[in-house]
Amino acid sequence: MHRLKCTVQYDGTRYAGYQVQPNGHTVQEELEKALTKMHKGRRVKVTASGRTDSGVHARGQVIHFDTDLHIPASNWKRALASMLPPDIHVAHAEQVDNDFHARYDTTGKEYRYFVWNSQEPDIFRRNFTYHIKMPLQLEAMKTACRLIEGEHDFTSFCSSRTDVKGSKVRTIHQASIEKNGDELTFVFKGSGFLYNMVRILVGTLLEVGRGERKPEDLKAIIEAGNREAAGKTAPPHGLFLWKVDY
Amino acid sequence: MHRLKCTVQYDGTRYAGYQVQPNGHTVQEELEKALTKMHKGRRVKVTASGRTDSGVHARGQVIHFDTDLHIPASNWKRALASMLPPDIHVAHAEQVDNDFHARYDTTGKEYRYFVWNSQEPDIFRRNFTYHIKMPLQLEAMKTACRLIEGEHDFTSFCSSRTDVKGSKVRTIHQASIEKNGDELTFVFKGSGFLYNMVRILVGTLLEVGRGERKPEDLKAIIEAGNREAAGKTAPPHGLFLWKVDY
Repeated sequence: MHRLKCTVQYDGTRYAGYQVQPNGHTVQEELEKALTKMHKGRRVKVTASGRTDSGVHARGQVIHFDTDLHIPASNWKRALASMLPPDIHVAHAEQVDNDFHARYDTTGKEYRYFVWNSQEPDIFRRNFTYHIKMPLQLEAMKTACRLIEGEHDFTSFCSSRTDVKGSKVRTIHQASIEKNGDELTFVFKGSGFLYNMVRILVGTLLEVGRGERKPEDLKAIIEAGNREAAGKTAPPHGLFLWKVDY
Repeated sequence: MHRLKCTVQYDGTRYAGYQVQPNGHTVQEELEKALTKMHKGRRVKVTASGRTDSGVHARGQVIHFDTDLHIPASNWKRALASMLPPDIHVAHAEQVDNDFHARYDTTGKEYRYFVWNSQEPDIFRRNFTYHIKMPLQLEAMKTACRLIEGEHDFTSFCSSRTDVKGSKVRTIHQASIEKNGDELTFVFKGSGFLYNMVRILVGTLLEVGRGERKPEDLKAIIEAGNREAAGKTAPPHGLFLWKVDY
């Protein structure tokens, strides 16, 4: 047996999230179905860097699995492409050491969140951007971003449905916003992220952008250590798991 | 009664084309359903600049309909938005003279066709671009474009399933290709277009881009006056009705 590491892209629109669950169709299920077919019915278990919620997309999800098939790493991509639906794509495949672990070995992640800020919708990007009609104050949101960067206890930005029992201290290396025409891209790079953390950060930043909160409020929100102190959770369809570092 | 002219955008992915037909769900049907609801059940007929095929999109389809409702033109957009599905959007609405006709008064149209030319797919644009892995010769296709421009009998670029009984002479004011990264945008502006004309033009240009035909072959293809002389019809999902002129 040897271990393969793959970078996977998916359009999360029609999936009930990444992880296999009793009700609903998931990305993991599609990956395992394709691999099981390739292994002539022997079940292959896929391990990912982490789950993503229903409607959330990925540009750079990372998975690993073990196989006894002798296929050159460069051919795995093509073999999987022919088995997977058009909204899931394996962008990269390589053989790794047998002790590589897609979840435990991560050293950081990057998420991006896309907002379409215009009176008019962009119906062609409707599943990939969160449409906000009201003009947003970009500079205020950028100021607030600076208060997110660094090492903090992010309890205020963690859904109460989390599994995390231990520390909620995480380090955010970058929290920034780029504007291209009517599209805003929120970029978050960090050591790790709590459940719904990016969507709660974005939801809170958007309240700053709408003038409902001041940029400097972020300090008090973090210090509160209470989910109630932060803003609404932004909807899933603007969110992309962009990159996973090892 | 007064007449309204609207500019309509749609993602054609889940429709059996624009025009109402016995089998399948169409854009016209959605528009008429929304308008009929607004008119308390009285059926409203919508007339478009022309039909689009299954899977073809529109950025600037134009329609007209007659109404006795006294709603300011600026409010029609909002009223229709609340009645239409998220893949159809009314971008503009205005009251016009009662003799305006969305189909008969057109003076020209613009279509765009998007090609994603890369080894890797872009799954997030898969419904809006035609993915071609083989590298295309851009300059050869641009040279061929120049032979398309002007007034010609476009019989070779007209599907045999056309309704057109009269002349197939049309004037193409612009046939050009722009490259942005891995995406090619084919732009066609003309006095009018025959059935499947843009998709057959693109299919033929792509054969030039692949080196299967020479750019100068376009001259003989046009002169042949025979659909068999031209290339394959490119798939519908890369095509957008971009703008209609009056």
